[in-house]
Amino acid sequence: MLTVRFRSDGTVNTGTVDGHRITTDDATHRIGKVEILPPSEPTKIIAVGKNYRDHVRAILGEVEKEEFPMLFFKPPSSIVGHGDDVIAPESSHFLDYEAELGVVIGERCSSVSEANALEYVEGYTCVNDVTARDWQHTEEQWARAKGFDTFCPIGPVVQTELQESLDITCRVNGEVRQSSNTDELLFSIPELVAEISGHFTLLPGDVIATGTPAGTSAETIPMKEWSDRAGEGALEPGDTVEVEIETIGTLENQVRSP
Amino acid sequence: MLTVRFRSDGTVNTGTVDGHRITTDDATHRIGKVEILPPSEPTKIIAVGKNYRDHVRAILGEVEKEEFPMLFFKPPSSIVGHGDDVIAPESSHFLDYEAELGVVIGERCSSVSEANALEYVEGYTCVNDVTARDWQHTEEQWARAKGFDTFCPIGPVVQTELQESLDITCRVNGEVRQSSNTDELLFSIPELVAEISGHFTLLPGDVIATGTPAGTSAETIPMKEWSDRAGEGALEPGDTVEVEIETIGTLENQVRSP
Repeated sequence: MLTVRFRSDGTVNTGTVDGHRITTDDATHRIGKVEILPPSEPTKIIAVGKNYRDHVRAILGEVEKEEFPMLFFKPPSSIVGHGDDVIAPESSHFLDYEAELGVVIGERCSSVSEANALEYVEGYTCVNDVTARDWQHTEEQWARAKGFDTFCPIGPVVQTELQESLDITCRVNGEVRQSSNTDELLFSIPELVAEISGHFTLLPGDVIATGTPAGTSAETIPMKEWSDRAGEGALEPGDTVEVEIETIGTLENQVRSP
Repeated sequence: MLTVRFRSDGTVNTGTVDGHRITTDDATHRIGKVEILPPSEPTKIIAVGKNYRDHVRAILGEVEKEEFPMLFFKPPSSIVGHGDDVIAPESSHFLDYEAELGVVIGERCSSVSEANALEYVEGYTCVNDVTARDWQHTEEQWARAKGFDTFCPIGPVVQTELQESLDITCRVNGEVRQSSNTDELLFSIPELVAEISGHFTLLPGDVIATGTPAGTSAETIPMKEWSDRAGEGALEPGDTVEVEIETIGTLENQVRSP
């Protein structure tokens, strides 16, 4: 089942999606006539680094599953919805996309087992973990690199069923930049929910961004050059970025100047 | 003026503090008769690293003010109030305290100037930026090290006036471990609010933890040993930690096993 959070006549609601129709308990809306909102208002966004085999191979040359997934936070103030603009910060010259599958938590949980993990999940959505690569290279901790306002487009819908082997794609101005499959995940979604909930109590609406596959523009140049020049295909104002995940949908956002 | 957020008869309220008395619009309470709550419910907690001259000298040997303050996030799920327990995670053997002055944002702001920065601040409080040093050494990004549940004690009160040259002290079981003064800050509070609001929109209740002075137990051993053994005076279950800041007050929490 696909659900969408939206605003219509000033009221925020969640409905189920069937083609171009949204159905709530009391009404039916046409999808083009409402404002699509981010799927939730998370208290925290936990993002996972180096979690696709193809991406790790591209940046490190070899793939080894670490003992623990690499985690970092994006602040809730970085969230924007489908169709909202991503604002390129003046202080960065190297803006990059990262297509990711997002897990939306449905129920408060702490230290859950892998076997029970998915019971606490509301569903799955598209995330673009927008990153300022020059800041990522400059900063010891990636607060700015991953945290600027508008750096976390998310949505447009939540798929309540998780299927295996989902294609995940990122397109910039229609050109495919990332094309992978969730089979490439090193830590599976149940593993991530179990591990993360062992450290931080997860609350309804919290989001786990599960990592990005190969094909970021950062992969085209060595990290030590990130502060001086941008990789091939880095994002520019005017660019349109799409994150598409099989069975879920397509998240689209445009980049603009401040 | 000192304010406190508290719960009494199931209702959350904020009042002004005068000695042992809390005054709200409609009532007066005795401070021992109510439940003291964290001063706010932040959407994000931005913490600053390496921001006291004496601390930077202790860990790096020399002091140079960087071009930008070092920033990282603690999740809202790490917050506990005055008197609440800090839970020592089973996965860490090296738990440390960090006494810090916390800035509570009062009004939404973005890209404010240093000159206007303090207009957006509600007030100042005590923060203990509890840290799992072994995780801090192991992790590339400090999500777990700084983010476990209960790793952000905050409160008990908010001082609405900021004075200069405030003594800041941390005591463990009554023994002084950190004893410094806000004169040692490298980036001042207006500089921090201006810089941080230039990257992330700050919302009412958001907290900036402005960095810790010298005297952490991590300073007693080299970082490369943090994964193997704890520094002198590391926190243990049963320990009582106090963070005291002149003109503000004293935040007290006890460490316990899970």
